[in-house]
Amino acid sequence: MSLDPQRTVAELKELRDLTSDENGAQRVAWTDTWLKAREWFQSKINYLPVEHHYDAAGNSWTTLPGASEKTLIIGGHLDSVPNGGWLDGSLGVTAGLAVLRRFAEEFDGHPPITVRLVDWADEEGARFGRSLLGSSAFAGTSSIEADRSRTDKDGIRLEDAVERCGFPLHRFPEATSEQKNGSAYLELHIEQGPVLERMNLPLGVVLGTKGVERHAVTFFGQEAHSGSTPMNARQDALAAAAKLALEIRSIAGKHKDAVCTMGSVKTFPGIVTAVVGRCETTLDQRDLDAGILAGMYREAQEASQRFAHEEKCTVEWSRIWSIQPIAFHPTLLGFCEEAVREVSGAAHRLPSGPLHDAAEVARAGIPTVMMFVQSLRGISHNKIEDTREEHLEISVKALDRLASKAAGWILDPAA
Amino acid sequence: MSLDPQRTVAELKELRDLTSDENGAQRVAWTDTWLKAREWFQSKINYLPVEHHYDAAGNSWTTLPGASEKTLIIGGHLDSVPNGGWLDGSLGVTAGLAVLRRFAEEFDGHPPITVRLVDWADEEGARFGRSLLGSSAFAGTSSIEADRSRTDKDGIRLEDAVERCGFPLHRFPEATSEQKNGSAYLELHIEQGPVLERMNLPLGVVLGTKGVERHAVTFFGQEAHSGSTPMNARQDALAAAAKLALEIRSIAGKHKDAVCTMGSVKTFPGIVTAVVGRCETTLDQRDLDAGILAGMYREAQEASQRFAHEEKCTVEWSRIWSIQPIAFHPTLLGFCEEAVREVSGAAHRLPSGPLHDAAEVARAGIPTVMMFVQSLRGISHNKIEDTREEHLEISVKALDRLASKAAGWILDPAA
Repeated sequence: MSLDPQRTVAELKELRDLTSDENGAQRVAWTDTWLKAREWFQSKINYLPVEHHYDAAGNSWTTLPGASEKTLIIGGHLDSVPNGGWLDGSLGVTAGLAVLRRFAEEFDGHPPITVRLVDWADEEGARFGRSLLGSSAFAGTSSIEADRSRTDKDGIRLEDAVERCGFPLHRFPEATSEQKNGSAYLELHIEQGPVLERMNLPLGVVLGTKGVERHAVTFFGQEAHSGSTPMNARQDALAAAAKLALEIRSIAGKHKDAVCTMGSVKTFPGIVTAVVGRCETTLDQRDLDAGILAGMYREAQEASQRFAHEEKCTVEWSRIWSIQPIAFHPTLLGFCEEAVREVSGAAHRLPSGPLHDAAEVARAGIPTVMMFVQSLRGISHNKIEDTREEHLEISVKALDRLASKAAGWILDPAA
Repeated sequence: MSLDPQRTVAELKELRDLTSDENGAQRVAWTDTWLKAREWFQSKINYLPVEHHYDAAGNSWTTLPGASEKTLIIGGHLDSVPNGGWLDGSLGVTAGLAVLRRFAEEFDGHPPITVRLVDWADEEGARFGRSLLGSSAFAGTSSIEADRSRTDKDGIRLEDAVERCGFPLHRFPEATSEQKNGSAYLELHIEQGPVLERMNLPLGVVLGTKGVERHAVTFFGQEAHSGSTPMNARQDALAAAAKLALEIRSIAGKHKDAVCTMGSVKTFPGIVTAVVGRCETTLDQRDLDAGILAGMYREAQEASQRFAHEEKCTVEWSRIWSIQPIAFHPTLLGFCEEAVREVSGAAHRLPSGPLHDAAEVARAGIPTVMMFVQSLRGISHNKIEDTREEHLEISVKALDRLASKAAGWILDPAA
């Protein structure tokens, strides 16, 4: 049995049929449907010469031991958002399984280096609002205390949900032991954006994950009667917010891959007959370059102050969350570009806007790279998420070539 | 007893003490506190030579019969919004009572024309969302069927609330009989806006009530991931809405007294990590000139289409409510200006942005005018609503002078 990309597509459909309903994939982490997906995965490795175990944070590790303990890790995640797509995360696991099978066959069950496939637990954070839960435990970047009090929409505690699956929260930090001998990490994922489709390219080389500055920005004006308050006597908090909503496009537009998004606007009192007295907005800014990101953040702050002043309002900022940009490993980026070029003729490098488990692995100091395959219409987290089957197949081929190049490098970094 | 404006201020304070709590006035129509306010009013007319009754819609009529059946009506409303101010509506009733007392005394209980004081029921519409309820029943412009299904926030039906106070909804249309012999209608009200205060004038002559075009304006774009969707690939419904929020200021700015307000913005999905796929806004436009109002409405529609196109979105409009501008009576406007000038030295004419019961009376074909007294900070519908006591006192004097001029005109329109 050599590499079989068609089998990967068939397995993805099998998994979809098993774990989706009419609204899409329902493999939300720590639910029965997710456990069913993992059981299905187990059935796929029954006859491979591998060892399998779950680590303390619920990450699923399938190990093909090699002559060297130096380890190539390939990853993905079987969990999905509610009403999600069939490829987000699961492509990484099933394509990784195809590569693992190829290594097992080519080297008669004993490759020169160790190869491991990991299915990260709770990448999406869909239920408890904490994404990258398993991979951050692996990386040692998570804080159990911050997660302990999280509850889902039914009031069920994260702590109880993970314990029910056999993973007590207080033991999550032990997952860092899985880092041992990790020499390179590879992850294939759908792009979840429209860039590759617009360039008519099946595959892309991922430069890293963008840093994120995420803030609540609230403008304070003066609520007033919409009928009796002349236009020039208003302190309209919405007007200041509207100016910022438009200005962030100019701020992002100065940089090639930067994005700025105002995703939420709330108006108070928010009635048709009152000038807006308070306007709460959210701002999400991302770039791969830490300097550019910091500059955009500063520019947006300055603009908000200017607009507040113009509208006789005030403005307050409060950080919701932030993360530094994470650049992937230059040598692996080169291998990834070679692999993509070999199977598809052209290679484009692009940053990832969404975060991925690969970012946590990179933070753990393990050389990391990701490969994207084109998403149709750039849509994900939705049942209409899709990728052409021919593109899925060549993405498996490209991942396999990348794995071979990485394995050679692990064995002889100087070569 | 001649005109006693100080007594009016004392009575306003008495009413405030009786019907307010630490959050302001609580005289919401059809509640016990409102009934208590009306009971208090009854105690004030006990020793006057008047007849009192409630009409079929709950409006309270106090009649001082005169030699002629031709009738001068003076009005106001005792109901307030929740957590309201001490003057909104109640000034009209208490000042009207002062004028009624003066007429009764001056003519020994039998003036040459009939003088009536009306306390309209449910001007604010605060509980069931239907303002001018009593006065529109009087004018015959209301539709019982539309009001029957209204409920308050606790699910209590308007129909049950009015019946509990003794006014079955199906009899409301009979209130039109009170129009009989109505020859002029006068109403004194606080401005509820900042215009007079900014001009340092205690009183203003109200030209009429502005027409209103009130619409829901919804932009439809494409929800997308804030991290993976490049700026130039977005269909951001918020951006189109933000452009409209700013453009309506230019549209209103072309006309002296016109106002345009975006009071509510709702974003969907409305999360920090998603480009806004749908943005629901409200637009409230007002002017005293029907042509200007229609022009502003058309301009806003065209602008919204242009912005939707620029942002690769679509837009839909849905009318929430509209009313034509209502101009007050030219002869009464002249009398009002004379009266204001006589007591304060200067008269400024201004339109009313908020609607008032006077608009309904004018729609019934009765010559109508209103007078405004300055509001401090332009604030109303709030416990901090206030007017200087000296201004309240001269407003009572001006209303009294206006009433005398109107009475003379009613008696001899050709004079």
